[in-house]
Amino acid sequence: VPSQLLHEIDEQPRALARLLSDRSDAVREAAKRIRAFDPAFVMIAARGTSDNAARYAQYLFGAHNHLGVALAVPSLYTMYNAPPRLDRALTIGISQSGQSPDVVSVVAEARRQGGATLAITNDASSPLAAAADITLLLSTGAETSVAATKTYTNQLLLLSMLSAALGDDRQRDDELARVPEAVAAALTGCGDIGEIALDFTSAGRFVVLGRGFNYCTAFEIALKMKETSYVLAEPYSVADLLHGPVAMIEYGFPVVVVAPSGLATADIGDLLEVLKRRRARTIALSDRDDVLARVTSGIRLPAGVPEWLSPVVAVVPGQRFAHALATAKGLDPDRPRDLSKVTLTR
Amino acid sequence: VPSQLLHEIDEQPRALARLLSDRSDAVREAAKRIRAFDPAFVMIAARGTSDNAARYAQYLFGAHNHLGVALAVPSLYTMYNAPPRLDRALTIGISQSGQSPDVVSVVAEARRQGGATLAITNDASSPLAAAADITLLLSTGAETSVAATKTYTNQLLLLSMLSAALGDDRQRDDELARVPEAVAAALTGCGDIGEIALDFTSAGRFVVLGRGFNYCTAFEIALKMKETSYVLAEPYSVADLLHGPVAMIEYGFPVVVVAPSGLATADIGDLLEVLKRRRARTIALSDRDDVLARVTSGIRLPAGVPEWLSPVVAVVPGQRFAHALATAKGLDPDRPRDLSKVTLTR
Repeated sequence: VPSQLLHEIDEQPRALARLLSDRSDAVREAAKRIRAFDPAFVMIAARGTSDNAARYAQYLFGAHNHLGVALAVPSLYTMYNAPPRLDRALTIGISQSGQSPDVVSVVAEARRQGGATLAITNDASSPLAAAADITLLLSTGAETSVAATKTYTNQLLLLSMLSAALGDDRQRDDELARVPEAVAAALTGCGDIGEIALDFTSAGRFVVLGRGFNYCTAFEIALKMKETSYVLAEPYSVADLLHGPVAMIEYGFPVVVVAPSGLATADIGDLLEVLKRRRARTIALSDRDDVLARVTSGIRLPAGVPEWLSPVVAVVPGQRFAHALATAKGLDPDRPRDLSKVTLTR
Repeated sequence: VPSQLLHEIDEQPRALARLLSDRSDAVREAAKRIRAFDPAFVMIAARGTSDNAARYAQYLFGAHNHLGVALAVPSLYTMYNAPPRLDRALTIGISQSGQSPDVVSVVAEARRQGGATLAITNDASSPLAAAADITLLLSTGAETSVAATKTYTNQLLLLSMLSAALGDDRQRDDELARVPEAVAAALTGCGDIGEIALDFTSAGRFVVLGRGFNYCTAFEIALKMKETSYVLAEPYSVADLLHGPVAMIEYGFPVVVVAPSGLATADIGDLLEVLKRRRARTIALSDRDDVLARVTSGIRLPAGVPEWLSPVVAVVPGQRFAHALATAKGLDPDRPRDLSKVTLTR
């Protein structure tokens, strides 16, 4: 039986293309209402994989829409019953299932206070969709694998469509249209990934590095590795790593470096030098020849992807690596231990 | 030679008492100016240990002051040159040294935009203090150990003094006054910590769990362990762990549980049951007899500390544990590999 996870990873170019064709009008309509509201800042409520999409939004809305983004602290709503003021905010709930009670609580409270509210979900009849003024659907079709993949990349693309619509920028629309093709090319570049994974079957600890727009990518790849392969994979920004935890990187320590072209990787040579001096084993996801030449194992990303959209593309080989690592370890990536698709945490 | 780190950990009750006596007036004056500005939200820029103080502020300002708190994304200022709008925000920079260029960038930009700006630092003549409208000093005296301890607890206490002053709440002033004594009692409760650490000398991986107000405590204890003992210690909220990474907890896996009394630990029994079923080795920091009785190793916290101030107290045995673990591993906790006190990341 082929893996359901692998099937959903490989389905992503089609799911992304469907989102662009099905939801562009709804996104433009949502952008119009949000612009009219003129939010002072954005508050995003999300958990797990969706929280990594929220991390992307911090860079995206900041860099392209001049909006500060706060990540919600759900327990203020559900446990301490002391929510912050959200009447001047745009509050966004992101949840594939739309069932997460804590995400729903944040959005419902924001609406009660008179703020603007937006739900991003795969289920139009979910409690999250009911709680928000505006709902944008992910259009992925059913995702049955426990580890989320195609709903994540569609969340990222939907957020980037919304950001472009808020800015009313036609060049960005053209760049968005090329994303499905770039993701297909990234999948093609994953040819050797099964063999690379074989070299790391005995590793129990990983560090995953990303920076700027791809800080979220480091988090999401680490999460996939933990979910499917039970390894301890810790995501860091390059700056935070050098600010302290670099001390734990020693001989043979496996480090995944997310490094698509862009401002965030302009000085990546310095990082590679530090990792080399510490004799880490490095896996790079990059379109840059100079990066791929300086690491233990390179996975090639397609060239020409603008930095702001690179997280949609760069995560894909990471998903495939997590799948390959689980398979190489003899684990079933479709049936992670003790995980259910919808966790009703509060 | 006794360890400088240990000396500074044990100095904390005095440093906290000095902060209360030296800075209460300045804090009240700052609160008056901030109330007059009436911020729509708070943006905090910080790195490393100071970033964990910012995490505390997310709960504190949310629960007690109805203020949403965003953690700044410095690369928007320094790398992408596309800062968000901060004219309606209170922007706070937290940095022990006040030298961090990225933290200074965020505060300087916020001031340029006409927002309210506050520096929390140990150095009145630092660039951070110069960049902000208002400066509040940490009053710890010199901190020479590379791993920050007394500056962290003074950052937490200063933030809690500011929150109380913003709310103009006299009961909270009384609770603040008892913090130094509670920290002294927590230090007294660390008697067995050297022996507990001996049981974990061969462990390379830890998970550190905290929730609500003590989410920051989990992050800070994990950071101290990484900085001094080179172990991979990953902090999680209980909800996030159960949402996925719980799969990696297996027989003998060491888990540190930060669990002082409060709303956040009302249903901690469920978590302890999950950890027991997975046969994790558990270390709890708690004042609750029922919690201490159900874990592999218990470290007793003083009773009677209000939940909002418990992070100042609960981190202290974690600092001592990180020190003891380094010592048990034969490492020098005063000289972490490749770490310098001030990291000039951008």
